Amino acid sequence: MNEAYEALAARFHRLGALRAATGMLQWDSAAMMPAGAAPGRAEQVAQLGIVCHEILTDPANGELLDRAEAKLDRLDPWKRANLREMRRSWHHATAVPAELVEALSRAVSDCEHYWREARHRNDFAGLRPRFERVLALVRESAAAKAGAFGCAPYEALLDEYEPGLSTVTIDRLFGDLLPFLKEALPLALERQARAPKAVLPTGPFPAEAQRGLGLGFMTSLGFDFERGRLDVSHHPFTGGAPGDVRITTRYDEADFTRGLMGVLHETGHALYELGLPEDWAWQPVGQAPGMVLHESQSLLIEMQVCRGDVFLDYAAPIVTKAFGGQGAAWGADNLRRLYRKVERGLIRVDADEITYPLHVMLRTRLERALIAGELTIADLPDAWNDGMGELLGVVPPDDKDGCLQDIHWPSGAFGYFPTYTLGALAAAQLFAAARQADPTIEPGIAKGDFKPLLHWLRGNVHGRGHLERTDGILKAATGANLGTTAFKAHIRRRYLD
Amino acid sequence: MNEAYEALAARFHRLGALRAATGMLQWDSAAMMPAGAAPGRAEQVAQLGIVCHEILTDPANGELLDRAEAKLDRLDPWKRANLREMRRSWHHATAVPAELVEALSRAVSDCEHYWREARHRNDFAGLRPRFERVLALVRESAAAKAGAFGCAPYEALLDEYEPGLSTVTIDRLFGDLLPFLKEALPLALERQARAPKAVLPTGPFPAEAQRGLGLGFMTSLGFDFERGRLDVSHHPFTGGAPGDVRITTRYDEADFTRGLMGVLHETGHALYELGLPEDWAWQPVGQAPGMVLHESQSLLIEMQVCRGDVFLDYAAPIVTKAFGGQGAAWGADNLRRLYRKVERGLIRVDADEITYPLHVMLRTRLERALIAGELTIADLPDAWNDGMGELLGVVPPDDKDGCLQDIHWPSGAFGYFPTYTLGALAAAQLFAAARQADPTIEPGIAKGDFKPLLHWLRGNVHGRGHLERTDGILKAATGANLGTTAFKAHIRRRYLD
Repeated sequence: MNEAYEALAARFHRLGALRAATGMLQWDSAAMMPAGAAPGRAEQVAQLGIVCHEILTDPANGELLDRAEAKLDRLDPWKRANLREMRRSWHHATAVPAELVEALSRAVSDCEHYWREARHRNDFAGLRPRFERVLALVRESAAAKAGAFGCAPYEALLDEYEPGLSTVTIDRLFGDLLPFLKEALPLALERQARAPKAVLPTGPFPAEAQRGLGLGFMTSLGFDFERGRLDVSHHPFTGGAPGDVRITTRYDEADFTRGLMGVLHETGHALYELGLPEDWAWQPVGQAPGMVLHESQSLLIEMQVCRGDVFLDYAAPIVTKAFGGQGAAWGADNLRRLYRKVERGLIRVDADEITYPLHVMLRTRLERALIAGELTIADLPDAWNDGMGELLGVVPPDDKDGCLQDIHWPSGAFGYFPTYTLGALAAAQLFAAARQADPTIEPGIAKGDFKPLLHWLRGNVHGRGHLERTDGILKAATGANLGTTAFKAHIRRRYLD
Repeated sequence: MNEAYEALAARFHRLGALRAATGMLQWDSAAMMPAGAAPGRAEQVAQLGIVCHEILTDPANGELLDRAEAKLDRLDPWKRANLREMRRSWHHATAVPAELVEALSRAVSDCEHYWREARHRNDFAGLRPRFERVLALVRESAAAKAGAFGCAPYEALLDEYEPGLSTVTIDRLFGDLLPFLKEALPLALERQARAPKAVLPTGPFPAEAQRGLGLGFMTSLGFDFERGRLDVSHHPFTGGAPGDVRITTRYDEADFTRGLMGVLHETGHALYELGLPEDWAWQPVGQAPGMVLHESQSLLIEMQVCRGDVFLDYAAPIVTKAFGGQGAAWGADNLRRLYRKVERGLIRVDADEITYPLHVMLRTRLERALIAGELTIADLPDAWNDGMGELLGVVPPDDKDGCLQDIHWPSGAFGYFPTYTLGALAAAQLFAAARQADPTIEPGIAKGDFKPLLHWLRGNVHGRGHLERTDGILKAATGANLGTTAFKAHIRRRYLD
């Protein structure tokens, strides 16, 4: 018996339950809450945050961690991994002085709020002082963590979203991907120009019909409505709590394509959350290891499965029936063209599989320079526009569609962007391994039976929680560390051959 | 400056925010949550409860209260009242040992859960041991509080729901009401027998149309949808948080009458919550003084206003139009007969204005005897049936429609029942005073303008929070302590004249 471990487990159990409660309140804020209730809700969430921070930074925890780690041999692998993640959480929470945490939280709240208006008004100058304040505090916080963890400041930030992720890994993978994508992009555009144009089926597409369609696909994919819901919010997301996973989408009655793919993307996240090991639901080891694997699960469902030939052949008649459609615009060939359109665009969230990583590489490059102090906020718009020209061959006409487009930095999230593209790599690698391991997966998808795929994901990814880091899980599941091979093969097959 | 008071206010602010968060989660459980998420939600709410209990019983609070009370003269009336209620909360939380609180909480959870099935199966014998365990622990808890407060055990329980309520007050009011109602009941039934029979309009009544109708009346009554919502749940209730008030109802497509009146009843509760002083939203003084005044607000809207002649004349054409009704069944006269039907019934929640207090008096009598140790759970069914015969002239054929019908006792709520009838008395007294103070109130209702009524309620009840106890607020608003005069006059006018 490792008593110190058990004492910590009780503390983290409470923490897990309070964070789950917070997750529910945040879902409600986006999906249900009347507008006037926002200030009160912010206060509820802030007070819960303070209570959680106090639980995590309780002075007794440091000694409990030391004592629990001294008897590591008495713990099974799950408890060991749990203890490792307790230590990591505690490290992050205690490395930064409480006053700095509070100052950053206030600065972020102010900057994020201002950003919504500033983006709308294309007002970079107005946002700049708030943005500078956030960056200064994030840099201070990163420096404090870097000192405590013995790593570079940017890596201390990466560790919040993807534990253990290093700039060496990012450089290796992005360095490999960049020339490939810069070569692939014009080739894909040429091929696209030779093919028939994608045609948007004519609407309107009633929200109720779109919802019904989404619910149908969610059910087929294995979403458990006894432990989750589908609702509407301005920005689609997956939230809620362990065992109560809430996804949201938005319905455009003039165009169903984006809302539908949004539901499928969030369903990928949700299947992961619903497949995490229930016995560890309230403990750190019961959570996803990080954002890379989480994004890999949404992209596996969206990009690998649902934008794939096999799925679209299966889905086209179902979609057609849902809206009473007629004609060639409703066929699988046109849906493929709609769902695989490649474009040198300005906006990350509208980007395709080829250009999306280029958007991410630009942001990664810039945020590293910002954290390193090599780039100032004042110089950001020019650096952004230069980078867009170099990487994507288009230059934003204004900051609204340039460096003001993402909420991440104004909300203090530096180090998050790389996980999108690493997630895309992991998705391709996992789907390739899954199809190889179980040859019934693809024929299953062809007839709307996703059980073989879900079974493989449960066993190899979802059910493993945070027992290992992302790389360990990927290696066990695919036989290799995270690489670019499967992703490049996927891009070639879908866009170039 | 009273520093001890300010320190307490910060602690109670956190407590208020965490309780608001808990209120939101409880609303979600009833209105949104998928069934499989119940165990996880219970854990979230339990952990929040423990955190709240710890904040309230922190060893430093006793000394802070003493120090704050020593400088009472430095506090304005709101802060004084706030401090008084802090002391009362602390008293309740610290009077009972933590182990007893936990044991009771477990016993209640078990008994309440079992009760749902037991009621369904008419299985009093099966419930009995769990019921006895709850009663034993409630009695132990009441004895501990009685010792600490210097009052009778039953009064210590009353104080949880209605601070300061004494058995002397209950005896005085119920003693006055009982002979009146026993005489009124046969007279009202005779008069009813002479009148045309109430006819239920023919449906179906689509849920969407019922919802639209409810939303319309809520808007007229002054419900602010920027700070609240209307949803569906199995049992209608008013919940949520300060500034985010969520009411629920249930739609029976074969009969709209009950669902509609349910919405209006909950709207009464909601208007009260939305009218409480915003500046004190997270402090004890910003809450309702107790359940008597809360119930008075729902009953004022439902019984005094919405089942009244003036409202039904105004509402009948709106209701008719909402369902496309035709004929005499849709007229105000028939609606009046439907909404004022008197019956010697078995079920409290189905009871009318005359019989409801008789149901309450039976429960009050029995729960006092149970707490005093003068009645055992084993003898409860017989005592119940005897009491029903004596008070209402009907005897339940089984326990399902007898002593198993209410969740209150199985969930540990002894001392709650009297507040329903005291609330009905207060509703009549307040509405009479309001109409006298502002002669535009009734003409307003006749044309669907509830602003004068709401204005009076805001000034005289809602906005006063817990500045005074219920009796103080009633006395200032109506010129008298809580009495039976207005209620008896109301019953005479509506059912006997």
